[in-house]
Amino acid sequence: MQKDAHPENNAQSVLQMSVDFAGTFLFAVEGATAAVLSELDFFGVMVLGFTTALVGGVVRDLLIGAVPPRSIRDWRFPVVAFTGAGVVFFLHRYVERIPSPVMVTLDAACLGLFAVAGAEKALAYQINPFIATLMGTITAVGGGTVRDLLLAQVPSVLHSDVYATCALLGSVALVVSRAMGLHRTPSAVLGGVVCFLLRVVSAWQHWSLPTAFTT
Amino acid sequence: MQKDAHPENNAQSVLQMSVDFAGTFLFAVEGATAAVLSELDFFGVMVLGFTTALVGGVVRDLLIGAVPPRSIRDWRFPVVAFTGAGVVFFLHRYVERIPSPVMVTLDAACLGLFAVAGAEKALAYQINPFIATLMGTITAVGGGTVRDLLLAQVPSVLHSDVYATCALLGSVALVVSRAMGLHRTPSAVLGGVVCFLLRVVSAWQHWSLPTAFTT
Amino acid sequence: MQKDAHPENNAQSVLQMSVDFAGTFLFAVEGATAAVLSELDFFGVMVLGFTTALVGGVVRDLLIGAVPPRSIRDWRFPVVAFTGAGVVFFLHRYVERIPSPVMVTLDAACLGLFAVAGAEKALAYQINPFIATLMGTITAVGGGTVRDLLLAQVPSVLHSDVYATCALLGSVALVVSRAMGLHRTPSAVLGGVVCFLLRVVSAWQHWSLPTAFTT
Repeated sequence: MQKDAHPENNAQSVLQMSVDFAGTFLFAVEGATAAVLSELDFFGVMVLGFTTALVGGVVRDLLIGAVPPRSIRDWRFPVVAFTGAGVVFFLHRYVERIPSPVMVTLDAACLGLFAVAGAEKALAYQINPFIATLMGTITAVGGGTVRDLLLAQVPSVLHSDVYATCALLGSVALVVSRAMGLHRTPSAVLGGVVCFLLRVVSAWQHWSLPTAFTT
Repeated sequence: MQKDAHPENNAQSVLQMSVDFAGTFLFAVEGATAAVLSELDFFGVMVLGFTTALVGGVVRDLLIGAVPPRSIRDWRFPVVAFTGAGVVFFLHRYVERIPSPVMVTLDAACLGLFAVAGAEKALAYQINPFIATLMGTITAVGGGTVRDLLLAQVPSVLHSDVYATCALLGSVALVVSRAMGLHRTPSAVLGGVVCFLLRVVSAWQHWSLPTAFTT
Repeated sequence: MQKDAHPENNAQSVLQMSVDFAGTFLFAVEGATAAVLSELDFFGVMVLGFTTALVGGVVRDLLIGAVPPRSIRDWRFPVVAFTGAGVVFFLHRYVERIPSPVMVTLDAACLGLFAVAGAEKALAYQINPFIATLMGTITAVGGGTVRDLLLAQVPSVLHSDVYATCALLGSVALVVSRAMGLHRTPSAVLGGVVCFLLRVVSAWQHWSLPTAFTT
């Protein structure tokens, strides 16, 4: 709990919080959309919105010892996630009309945001930099992984395109630039931009990772 | 650990513990029955009994920072769960003959019990009341959700009837009545009764939540 | 964290660590092989290697309150797991040619190792001996269980042969011999040997646990 008094957290600006809430909202929208397409009921839509947006961060917090996790201590995160899910439940016809490139671009931005925030929090909790890059990746793709499990599907990050790899490389960029002495904000921006650009280009170019049989 | 010395816990009566054990036993019976019907072996039946009865509370405890979780600190909870599962393994022919309305009624009572106990423990750990209602719901339906995942099925709470909603509304009733100054015992009874009645009536009337396509 | 200064941990020899790393490597090889056969991509192979090797221990550590879990505090464990997974990704044609009896024997040794290490750590954290045997079992089979869930399959430990039971009985042997006053090393060797022999014999003789319909 005393970690909240950490100078880095005190310096966390209104801008930072707004960006976090926007990312939570968008990931909740994506999770709730998957729930609607799987014909889950209202409760299921809420659960998948919450899960997709917040479970990655919850797992990270449990692993690094930041207990209770932020989404359990700060009621605003669940409220934002449920709001995003509720919008999808009642307005999914309109949400579905958002052009795919717009959603991919917004999603890439959130991916970078979550990866950077996760890696940074792990570093603030004295986690080894190598492990911190894994924590960034879990923050970014953990929610979507559990969402897929709840739909009884093999998580898409395990077999298709380079989604998780972008989050990993964004986390690596942040950790390396911090290790090289760069300050907190430019490191975070660099990590986020690396993840965002890689994701947008890879989605546009349909990049995918090799499987063992293709090597 | 010192939370155990909390006055609310000291006041926890033999009656309270008996009720907790009865709920654990019944949920274990239900989980083990699902395992038997899925033709799992003896180990699988034990795991599904344990999971259904205790994993909801374990997740709640991890999230609110009550570590080690109660079912890990107090060996009696696993013993009760394994006993329930063992009864099903050896006597499932008789368990299956229990009339469905009896099982639904007993299950509704346990659902209310778990929801109320979960929300109350979250409040005792200084969790925000809104989040405490989510913790009550997770306590009540988390075990069944993980049981369904272990059977590689989409959790039934996500797509059918109003099961989880009853647990949520029971938790809300408890939290609201506590916020309005009601004492611990009447609040708990009120929350449990709300959950129980909603569940029995909804099962009897085949209520279900809307999906997005029905709105 | 101060638990690291526990005399038992100080006495942990280079031999002990080498054995732990060897077990982690082998379980990662097994998990990655399952991923390759399921045609997951490079990221999926890495995740399944990590999961199979380390998630059992992570869950144990979260449950007994050893936070952050060892695999998050000590970067060498993830590195060993990723190395094992990488070997499989690039050399799976050769890994697949390892004769099945060799793999079963190595796997049985790792099973005993993980079960014993898990039960022992739980005892060191003052967990009740009965629960400690469950923690040993979770350490040994938890990773494989989550691997199966990630592949959207019913975990094989729940329905086939006596795999998990060997881990449980090895843990019981360790806990009972500790309770009878045997020292740490002979208890661990005894528990590991019990698990190993049971597993090898049961695989060779195709033992399986009864299901409820066969009793």
